[in-house]
Amino acid sequence: MTTTADRTTKTNRKYRVIGTRPIRHDGHDKVTGRAKYGADIQLAGLLFGAVLRSPHPHARIRSIDTSKAAALPGVKAVMTGKDLPEKATPPGNFMETLADPQVLTENVMARGKVLYKGHAVAAVAAVDRHVAEEALELIEVDYEVLPHVLDVREAMKPGAPILHEDLRTRTTAQMPGDTPDTDGPTNIASHVQFVQGDVAQGFKEADAIVERTFETKPVHQGYIELHNSTASWSTDGNLTIWKSTQGPFIVRHQVACILNLPPSQIKVVPMEIGGGFGGKINTYTDAVAAVLSKKTGHPVQVVMSRKDVFEGTGPTSATHMRAKIGATKDGRITAVEVNLTYAAGGFPGSPVGSGAGTCLAPYKVENLKIDGYDVVVNEPKSAAYRAPGSPQAAFAVEPVIDELADKLGMDPMEFRLKNATRTGDRQASGVPFPSIGCVEVEEAMINHPHYKAPLEGPNRGRGVALGYWGNAGMNSSATINVTPNGSITLVTGSVDIGGSRPALAMQAAEVLGLAAEDVHPSVGDTDSVGYTGVTGGSRTTFATGIAVIKAAEDVRDQMIKRAALVWETQPEDVEFKDGVFTSKKNPEDTLTFQKLASRLMGTGGPVTASASADPKQVGPSFSGMIVDVEVDPETGKVDILRATLFQDVGTAVHPSYVEGQMQGGAVQGIGWALNEEYFYGDNGVMANSSFLDYRMPTSLDLPMVEPVVIEVPNPGHPFGLRGVGESSIVSPMAAIANAISHAIGQRLTTLPMSPTVVREALVNGDK
Amino acid sequence: MTTTADRTTKTNRKYRVIGTRPIRHDGHDKVTGRAKYGADIQLAGLLFGAVLRSPHPHARIRSIDTSKAAALPGVKAVMTGKDLPEKATPPGNFMETLADPQVLTENVMARGKVLYKGHAVAAVAAVDRHVAEEALELIEVDYEVLPHVLDVREAMKPGAPILHEDLRTRTTAQMPGDTPDTDGPTNIASHVQFVQGDVAQGFKEADAIVERTFETKPVHQGYIELHNSTASWSTDGNLTIWKSTQGPFIVRHQVACILNLPPSQIKVVPMEIGGGFGGKINTYTDAVAAVLSKKTGHPVQVVMSRKDVFEGTGPTSATHMRAKIGATKDGRITAVEVNLTYAAGGFPGSPVGSGAGTCLAPYKVENLKIDGYDVVVNEPKSAAYRAPGSPQAAFAVEPVIDELADKLGMDPMEFRLKNATRTGDRQASGVPFPSIGCVEVEEAMINHPHYKAPLEGPNRGRGVALGYWGNAGMNSSATINVTPNGSITLVTGSVDIGGSRPALAMQAAEVLGLAAEDVHPSVGDTDSVGYTGVTGGSRTTFATGIAVIKAAEDVRDQMIKRAALVWETQPEDVEFKDGVFTSKKNPEDTLTFQKLASRLMGTGGPVTASASADPKQVGPSFSGMIVDVEVDPETGKVDILRATLFQDVGTAVHPSYVEGQMQGGAVQGIGWALNEEYFYGDNGVMANSSFLDYRMPTSLDLPMVEPVVIEVPNPGHPFGLRGVGESSIVSPMAAIANAISHAIGQRLTTLPMSPTVVREALVNGDK
Repeated sequence: MTTTADRTTKTNRKYRVIGTRPIRHDGHDKVTGRAKYGADIQLAGLLFGAVLRSPHPHARIRSIDTSKAAALPGVKAVMTGKDLPEKATPPGNFMETLADPQVLTENVMARGKVLYKGHAVAAVAAVDRHVAEEALELIEVDYEVLPHVLDVREAMKPGAPILHEDLRTRTTAQMPGDTPDTDGPTNIASHVQFVQGDVAQGFKEADAIVERTFETKPVHQGYIELHNSTASWSTDGNLTIWKSTQGPFIVRHQVACILNLPPSQIKVVPMEIGGGFGGKINTYTDAVAAVLSKKTGHPVQVVMSRKDVFEGTGPTSATHMRAKIGATKDGRITAVEVNLTYAAGGFPGSPVGSGAGTCLAPYKVENLKIDGYDVVVNEPKSAAYRAPGSPQAAFAVEPVIDELADKLGMDPMEFRLKNATRTGDRQASGVPFPSIGCVEVEEAMINHPHYKAPLEGPNRGRGVALGYWGNAGMNSSATINVTPNGSITLVTGSVDIGGSRPALAMQAAEVLGLAAEDVHPSVGDTDSVGYTGVTGGSRTTFATGIAVIKAAEDVRDQMIKRAALVWETQPEDVEFKDGVFTSKKNPEDTLTFQKLASRLMGTGGPVTASASADPKQVGPSFSGMIVDVEVDPETGKVDILRATLFQDVGTAVHPSYVEGQMQGGAVQGIGWALNEEYFYGDNGVMANSSFLDYRMPTSLDLPMVEPVVIEVPNPGHPFGLRGVGESSIVSPMAAIANAISHAIGQRLTTLPMSPTVVREALVNGDK
Repeated sequence: MTTTADRTTKTNRKYRVIGTRPIRHDGHDKVTGRAKYGADIQLAGLLFGAVLRSPHPHARIRSIDTSKAAALPGVKAVMTGKDLPEKATPPGNFMETLADPQVLTENVMARGKVLYKGHAVAAVAAVDRHVAEEALELIEVDYEVLPHVLDVREAMKPGAPILHEDLRTRTTAQMPGDTPDTDGPTNIASHVQFVQGDVAQGFKEADAIVERTFETKPVHQGYIELHNSTASWSTDGNLTIWKSTQGPFIVRHQVACILNLPPSQIKVVPMEIGGGFGGKINTYTDAVAAVLSKKTGHPVQVVMSRKDVFEGTGPTSATHMRAKIGATKDGRITAVEVNLTYAAGGFPGSPVGSGAGTCLAPYKVENLKIDGYDVVVNEPKSAAYRAPGSPQAAFAVEPVIDELADKLGMDPMEFRLKNATRTGDRQASGVPFPSIGCVEVEEAMINHPHYKAPLEGPNRGRGVALGYWGNAGMNSSATINVTPNGSITLVTGSVDIGGSRPALAMQAAEVLGLAAEDVHPSVGDTDSVGYTGVTGGSRTTFATGIAVIKAAEDVRDQMIKRAALVWETQPEDVEFKDGVFTSKKNPEDTLTFQKLASRLMGTGGPVTASASADPKQVGPSFSGMIVDVEVDPETGKVDILRATLFQDVGTAVHPSYVEGQMQGGAVQGIGWALNEEYFYGDNGVMANSSFLDYRMPTSLDLPMVEPVVIEVPNPGHPFGLRGVGESSIVSPMAAIANAISHAIGQRLTTLPMSPTVVREALVNGDK
């Protein structure tokens, strides 16, 4: 194990390129405005689309009259949900597991009922945005307003307004087609449960037990770039979509399902992306732009407003949670019971399963019972947000762990380390952990100067918490072409959100003895590269990296054959090291990669290689935060004095971008902890749908978050990589809650811990 | 051998897909205006460039004052030849053999001297085209006007104005560095010579000899789409160029040479192309747009006017030629002497070598002497035009063959067939012919109803002639990705001018048992596909086709392994036929390509394959025309009554596009024969630089040209393909000249055979 503090140079000593910090390939174009984002696409005859959204959180649509809108000069087409096929149909027997296509299509445009304020009901295409928006006001929707429900506990009660008459609870063990748990309509879409050992017996053995209830609000991913789609549906049936997305192939699949098209008839061109964090995986306006394009014979562009983004796209789930943990005097956890209820929004599909699966990851627990409920409420359909589901669940477990350590009179990190999971221990699901660095992260925290530093002064407190994310594998493809001057071009299907172009280029460079700058990475569209899963699940640098390495190794082997041809020897007599080919028989015969590259045309033509990856040995990532806070007792405002984020990253390919991911996750966690929330009025309308009122932290609100990179190599990747993108967001809310409790002597159990909430706790005592 | 007349169905009986006529993949987008051409590129902050061109055909530039232009409001940058590196430098030791980079750079912008009217001397970038054009008028160039020379014979005379003081004649045998032929300055850039046998002895054995002198004018390729370049030079040094080109990799190389950049720093994005015919291989405005982009920090677009295209880009060479052929009474050719002098334009590089190499291809000649001279004159630098150099040379040889047959009292086709070349016969260069279909083409002509049909009426005549083009091989790359619904995407670097997307898709489909529609072909940019030579030399469907076939075979082999995995058997136990995988051990186990494609994600991830080709066994193509004309004795106007074009295409992949190529070549030949020419005044200025005055044939001027497809498979391609794009333009001028001579009883020896020329022959007799 090494940490950044250990590393004397920028370079990982094992590697030439891995561990260095080259300038990112897309940097200049982004800072000088040359990079092209989705809304930069300009096409001849482009029309502009706008979407009409429901003003009610729950209503039946009696009728929609679009005739006045259609008659407005400049309007070229109007559409409603009736213009989409009723049933979304997966093409062939290929299923993307990321989202239920039927839910997607009904979320894209309402049929019969609107399920949340902001649910799309109609759209127009017009010669410009202003005419399009004017036309929306001319669409007459006759709504029968229905009672609505926002709170998950209310939604679970008998007599609650029912969102979907045909919804029945599905349990973990049930497969499609099985009889559901419940007879009648319900808002509980699913119930997951993990049980190990004997929980009752475990609590009997406990010397101390802490139990608490927690609540969190919906928070948005908060990407800067608005959702956009530009679609051109040709007369030959081929549909091209330019857009900001985390996964062009996922969008292709989703649009294929929604429009009942073969995916090969759709080309999705991913533009540069201005943030996603999980929120740019599911399709929203693509099929709308496509249908409007088909109707008009023109390309159509739809760009959401910020209000559309807040009200019409997925935040992550609000939750109601309960955690009960018992331990012996000597600090051994004997039993855990966790109950998680997550708001899915208008359609099933909260990340409660991930929350249940990850919340106890840092702890080896013999007796556990975790229940998770996915509950529909009249809010926007929830979407993935960085380590989906895990931050909420950590906010339920980690403060209870902290309180239990207090109760036992133990140092909270010592208590954790005593119960830490190790490689091979069983996860909540029963599956053993692969190689993990939980202990290494905890030891790094304990040994860090921050943990040992004194924290003096009134109203101040220190908190710690752990975080975990399992990361994903999935499919990726890569193609490498050798340029005559010895650099290479690298094409993948992985949208670059956080520096994956340099991180992938560096892996190719490592294999081929090149500099990172000798690799020209680009992101292909769905017609120009093999199937590649979403940029999400912290999978890209890891899984697409493996495809890149395989392609680079193929290039290396082909080049060895060419060198053999030049020297009239056999490939096995050619050695390749640090970018130089050498003849074993005649060591004076050497060719640099560059020199040999210039001779490809005479020795068999260009060298090009494609490869794909489907890695199974994914490396999960543990993380943790130490945070110092100061609470203003007058206003309840919390200042972060110092924050240190620890994460096991396997191997840091590009330490700066790894550190950036860690800092970014920590900052989003700080925002979630202290300020961010969807603020709903009783009318079910979000009252703060702008960045002025939805308070994300700015640099003025934040200290420098110190990232501590811990490298426990993942044996499932040639260079030991783990995904690094998500784990860092998991611990901050709990760590800050623990710090505040040490500052003010009271436990806070709701998010955000805004000045109002903190002040109320100061005045009224422990909630 | 089969001809279209033989073929009872549209399908080549040997193949499933090859020989059928699917709709081209780019068809709909092109006819509905969706296809994006170079000038359709719109970028944020785009500036517009304009180029100042010399008004003089030959002058020394004393000075250029750009200060007034630079001061004009809206002008962002001004450049001259001084803004380009003095010496063009090939990157590394990789050389593209297509053009001398130093000539290219001096042609892109003049240094010291202007060598033709239209030679670029300066350029500006401004906020719009109008300001840019206005600024050009403010640039003050102080010229010392020099005497100019346009005619090749004048240019070869002692005392002629010398274009390049340092030019010395280079002979075929000379390599760079050898001492040149001549001591002093000359306009003769090179002299090629082919000699076989004893020409003097051959003529002694002849019973009849015909000798004639011929002259042709410069003609332009006449593509509809104007040259364009849009360049964005980023602050990190990376340069992106969007443009209409036949070869993005060639442009990358040429621009790399001109700007002294590594090619990997340049990305060329080929847009759809509106015609090229050889004229869109060399770079013109790319480095200009690039330098203006670097100077301004903005993307810059330069689009030529039609006048710019005529005056500033390559026509094909004007020529002065002489042919002398002798034969015995029984029709055996005993000796041939050919002298070809081609105008190179302002810089060396006419296609006289190709003319010399191809002009006797249809004839087995023991004794021959061919001399070719490349001569610089004060005209635009000549550029490739469909079978470069061969049509002119055929216009010198084929009429003499015809006249000799007349003299011998033989049928002109019988005379040709008697002397026809066969596989293994020596070419003029001494290299033996690979497998060829010369005899098959001639037999098809003789047996065709057109040749047997009576031609009655006064002023009418029938003519025949043969044509030949050797075709090219060169390097190509291709990548194939399998889509979950069982279609595939196909990426190549070959710009699609005449239907190469369908023709390449069909070859992949043939290998994989798919329909042509199941293949989604696209053209990649230089960063996304392996090095691929120009779309030219009739090489694309042949050579890129071989790369495509190799990639498809790789896909097939990978899919066989997946089927084996599914059936828990070995790959050698899996059979693949007509798109279906079958287990040899258990023939009930079958999987269609589509079905297996949907299961790739669970069996090892996506299937993707890249391959390259460097084919050596290129298949040359013979062709011939039978044409009937009627001459109006009052006006001299020639009407084409009937025209039939015969060509050995190897195997017709897509017969419609093969026929289209044949008809297109024939039509360009007819234009060249009857109307097209650069008309120069004594001042060296082209007087007809618009499509109104430069008379290209329209459909009103033409009969339906009947294409007769002859298929003599090329053993150098798995499906027997030969290149088909160029051979068809070679014979028409000679065939029409022969037809006119039979109509009016006099031999015409100049092109174009315009009404003025024909009328003069009618009045004044044989020239």
